[in-house]
Amino acid sequence: MAVQRSGESSYQIEGVYLGQTAAVVGPKEGEGPLADWFDRIWPDEGTRYPSYEKAEQALLSEAESIALDKSNMTWSDVDVVVGGDLLDQLITTNFDARSHSRPMLGVFSACASFTEGLALASLILGQGGPSTALVTAASHHLSAERQFRFPLELGYQRSPTASWTATASGVAVLSTRRSDLRIDSLTIGRVLDWGSHDPNDMASAMAPAAVDTMVRHLEAMGETQAHYDAIVTGDLGRFGLTLAQHLAAEEYHVSLGEKLQDCGEMLYDIQQQDVHNGGSGPGCSAGVFSGYFAENLRSGRLHRILLVATGALFSPKSYQQGESIPGIAHAIAITRQEEGQ
Amino acid sequence: MAVQRSGESSYQIEGVYLGQTAAVVGPKEGEGPLADWFDRIWPDEGTRYPSYEKAEQALLSEAESIALDKSNMTWSDVDVVVGGDLLDQLITTNFDARSHSRPMLGVFSACASFTEGLALASLILGQGGPSTALVTAASHHLSAERQFRFPLELGYQRSPTASWTATASGVAVLSTRRSDLRIDSLTIGRVLDWGSHDPNDMASAMAPAAVDTMVRHLEAMGETQAHYDAIVTGDLGRFGLTLAQHLAAEEYHVSLGEKLQDCGEMLYDIQQQDVHNGGSGPGCSAGVFSGYFAENLRSGRLHRILLVATGALFSPKSYQQGESIPGIAHAIAITRQEEGQ
Repeated sequence: MAVQRSGESSYQIEGVYLGQTAAVVGPKEGEGPLADWFDRIWPDEGTRYPSYEKAEQALLSEAESIALDKSNMTWSDVDVVVGGDLLDQLITTNFDARSHSRPMLGVFSACASFTEGLALASLILGQGGPSTALVTAASHHLSAERQFRFPLELGYQRSPTASWTATASGVAVLSTRRSDLRIDSLTIGRVLDWGSHDPNDMASAMAPAAVDTMVRHLEAMGETQAHYDAIVTGDLGRFGLTLAQHLAAEEYHVSLGEKLQDCGEMLYDIQQQDVHNGGSGPGCSAGVFSGYFAENLRSGRLHRILLVATGALFSPKSYQQGESIPGIAHAIAITRQEEGQ
Repeated sequence: MAVQRSGESSYQIEGVYLGQTAAVVGPKEGEGPLADWFDRIWPDEGTRYPSYEKAEQALLSEAESIALDKSNMTWSDVDVVVGGDLLDQLITTNFDARSHSRPMLGVFSACASFTEGLALASLILGQGGPSTALVTAASHHLSAERQFRFPLELGYQRSPTASWTATASGVAVLSTRRSDLRIDSLTIGRVLDWGSHDPNDMASAMAPAAVDTMVRHLEAMGETQAHYDAIVTGDLGRFGLTLAQHLAAEEYHVSLGEKLQDCGEMLYDIQQQDVHNGGSGPGCSAGVFSGYFAENLRSGRLHRILLVATGALFSPKSYQQGESIPGIAHAIAITRQEEGQ
């Protein structure tokens, strides 16, 4: 049996592998500490496109092409695309899908969309179902700013806890075809609301869901943080990392130790690049995973990671109506298959 | 093997059953020809709630409770919720999920979200994965109008091809537990763009995708329309039905005959209720299926139906930017298990 349930919503996976990945990022992300790990760095935010929304589609489309090229695959080898983004009605993902016209499953859990896609694809691959999936996520700083906050022209001041939506896309090929990296297990997250109300502090909104999912995953699998080389959240940022450490220790009596890292915290040089709390957006964890972490797993520098992308669930309208901001996080464990195993 | 692939993106399913369903609708929908088939009809559009967005959440929440009650289930029996809606950032689905806190997979393919959910759930149930899923979709006329078109207070005139976003929710329990109705097969749709630009004529945007999915499903399964008692689109409406018939006949040489019906066309008395093209919204097909069609399958009046919900993929911003409106449609076949089978 290829899937085996452990605990409430955790599943062990067999026979699903992580193939090639690709990450394309914007200029600011390309000036950060992870620059060497991305497949392509744009020289600007995509000013050659008629809109930032179009630029975001191109960012996604480029990462898809690179991932397929690296895999020696064409679109016809892709059985299903599972993807999501942050823009209203998923226009990045769905408009990009016009050009490839492959079977398409749109997913949304805000900045956790990439791990929702990885989890879903891992559950449907093999067993007679699709055998190759392209999992995608993207975001663009300027399209997100004007949708969620203010047009940049306004020059408003950012609060210290605000995160910086990354201009980034990440694409991963998941397949039943054997490779060095296999999908080991996953946990589907649940929506938790601790009453956060500040869209300029999404770390506080997401940290409870991140810790809930991490702790439930470790418990269900009978693991501790020692099992992993890295436990990687999506975009908790600098404040969120500290918050998650405290929450895990005090509410759940679980130590996450030195293993806890965060894609949003790693993507930028936070002080130098003036991004306050760190990076965010579906493209943040998708890009950092598809670039940095996947490559480090391939090279053997890392052996096992747990990726826990985190999503803050709100819309500008829900915020204006005084609603709180719930969070969600989905986890997926990827293991490097050592020789002889 | 519980899933078997046929054709490019069609899958035969074994061991997944449709359990109880529930539909809750607004007052206008309750005055339509299908009134007797809904579980609950609201006396108004939800004026007791502080906002129409809150009303939409309640509409969904009520249908979920009714479906669980009918099933003698509690929330803890639900392994995963797969749901979607039309509001920016899926706030209906995700905010409702705060109250049940079950593992949540948010999906989006506009008004095709309900069949995307049914298809996804059918692919992940059993085989060691989750064994019970709640598939949900909802929409509210007034929250959709002010998001996509104009606030109602403006009193603008509707064009003849405009559809009426339904105030409706539909919830279906899918499970590995044997019941009379089984999920037979499904086809994952692809995004097609025939260059439609008019958000007041979504039928033209969606009909190509609907026909593409229907024809590919029939071909992959080696079926004709004669195999089904009804082939049911989501919200093509009156014009879309005619368009789909013509497209199928002229572009694909496939006759859909008298079998083609449309949830949006059936939900209202189009002339009397002044809804122009008919109903739309994710709640339209979800409600009409969960009420009318599921009940008619249970009673044996219908034996086999193919539900093909249709989605028009655009956002107000993409429209304002001059983008076209692509469409998508996912299909799912449900069969009544006759005695002795």
